[in-house]
Amino acid sequence: MNYTHRLEFKVRDYECDMQGLVNNSIYQNYLEHARHEFLISKGINFSEMVANKINLVVVRAELDYRDSLKSGDSFEISSNIKQITKVRFEFLQDIYRKNDSKLMLQAKIMGTSLNERGRPFQLDVLSRLFDE
Amino acid sequence: MNYTHRLEFKVRDYECDMQGLVNNSIYQNYLEHARHEFLISKGINFSEMVANKINLVVVRAELDYRDSLKSGDSFEISSNIKQITKVRFEFLQDIYRKNDSKLMLQAKIMGTSLNERGRPFQLDVLSRLFDE
Amino acid sequence: MNYTHRLEFKVRDYECDMQGLVNNSIYQNYLEHARHEFLISKGINFSEMVANKINLVVVRAELDYRDSLKSGDSFEISSNIKQITKVRFEFLQDIYRKNDSKLMLQAKIMGTSLNERGRPFQLDVLSRLFDE
Amino acid sequence: MNYTHRLEFKVRDYECDMQGLVNNSIYQNYLEHARHEFLISKGINFSEMVANKINLVVVRAELDYRDSLKSGDSFEISSNIKQITKVRFEFLQDIYRKNDSKLMLQAKIMGTSLNERGRPFQLDVLSRLFDE
Repeated sequence: MNYTHRLEFKVRDYECDMQGLVNNSIYQNYLEHARHEFLISKGINFSEMVANKINLVVVRAELDYRDSLKSGDSFEISSNIKQITKVRFEFLQDIYRKNDSKLMLQAKIMGTSLNERGRPFQLDVLSRLFDE
Repeated sequence: MNYTHRLEFKVRDYECDMQGLVNNSIYQNYLEHARHEFLISKGINFSEMVANKINLVVVRAELDYRDSLKSGDSFEISSNIKQITKVRFEFLQDIYRKNDSKLMLQAKIMGTSLNERGRPFQLDVLSRLFDE
Repeated sequence: MNYTHRLEFKVRDYECDMQGLVNNSIYQNYLEHARHEFLISKGINFSEMVANKINLVVVRAELDYRDSLKSGDSFEISSNIKQITKVRFEFLQDIYRKNDSKLMLQAKIMGTSLNERGRPFQLDVLSRLFDE
Repeated sequence: MNYTHRLEFKVRDYECDMQGLVNNSIYQNYLEHARHEFLISKGINFSEMVANKINLVVVRAELDYRDSLKSGDSFEISSNIKQITKVRFEFLQDIYRKNDSKLMLQAKIMGTSLNERGRPFQLDVLSRLFDE
């Protein structure tokens, strides 16, 4: 599969729960960080948008947990994005463990842009992402 | 809708991100805590299972974010569970804001039980949950 | 000891790390939540201050970890506050396990108020806290 | 100052709270990760110790918050360790912002090793750390 953006991570021990596995919620942290770095790579700065009262928000997340990351694992998040409607976009994000390239998690994260009044609107700058 | 288990929470400020909204990953923390308290209410203790090398794990999560919780919000997580296959079960979990009963998030969390070798197996004690 | 504010908590399993103990960083989450509820009890709303560009920040934290909270533990955070200088205040916060009243953690959290330019200033409304 | 171990990080947006600053508790996550990587660099694996029922735990933390990390900041954690008593050791950890080398936080983290019965003991392998 062709991915537009890739980012490497290493599991940190505080992200593991009493099972000794990365807790299920932490993957959403990882995925968010990969999305924000993807945006940065296209010149779109999440925190500047927040300062300008524009909020990118998640409206739906689908996460398929295939296997569990553990202490010491390095992994890569590979991301694509596509436009769904004028005001909705979807990130496809896959997590691969580095040492054996095993697919650990697949995610679809649907988002939208909210203006200062909390209403979805078409954020023109995002078209940079969809050109690929 | 009839729910088998309900649990009340209050947003804590450290759960809010730079948007001033509860971060998208935090809902999975909330949902997990509600599931574990649901299990406890049926005499099933997650940490004792971990000590006995039995791991309940999430295999798929679907989260529909309807609106965002904010600082000061109280909310309730209402949960049901159903058996899907011999080794899979699904929690249906809805988050309602307390002050106006608004539905904020709907989740389907599919899980399984893994034995000491990491293989799915039918954990008899879970039948207590499905009797409802 | 006399405490001005008390708040009850229960450990949530996602707060425990691979040792099966509440991770050392989580206590700062607990303590912050207790401080913000303390402020609320005196009519001071942290998130409203943030909206008004006033930031209460921690400048020093001293944490003595006496024993570790575990899954299932209920506990209470008991807090006092005193003024140190015109622009500095200190919270004394103790964590007691509920079932045996054992002192689990003692904390001194020194803070200050920053104005919109990031400079410490005397926030008059805090005098409500020190009157006790 | 001479440091035995250095590790680079970048702030992730989910680590920032409603003030738009890295939350005070997150620094303990950063410091823990730096300590565990320090241990790994000396051939000491925290998660293997946990599997062998040996727990390294924090007994006291002193954190001086000098300035706040923000979205986009890169930083380095520089660490030293010294032995305090037969069963206590202390990490000295400083956080520097990359773009201007500003000292953002200074920490002293005192720890001990607990055996399977939860009693402090002298963990010989740690002598590798103190030889420096």
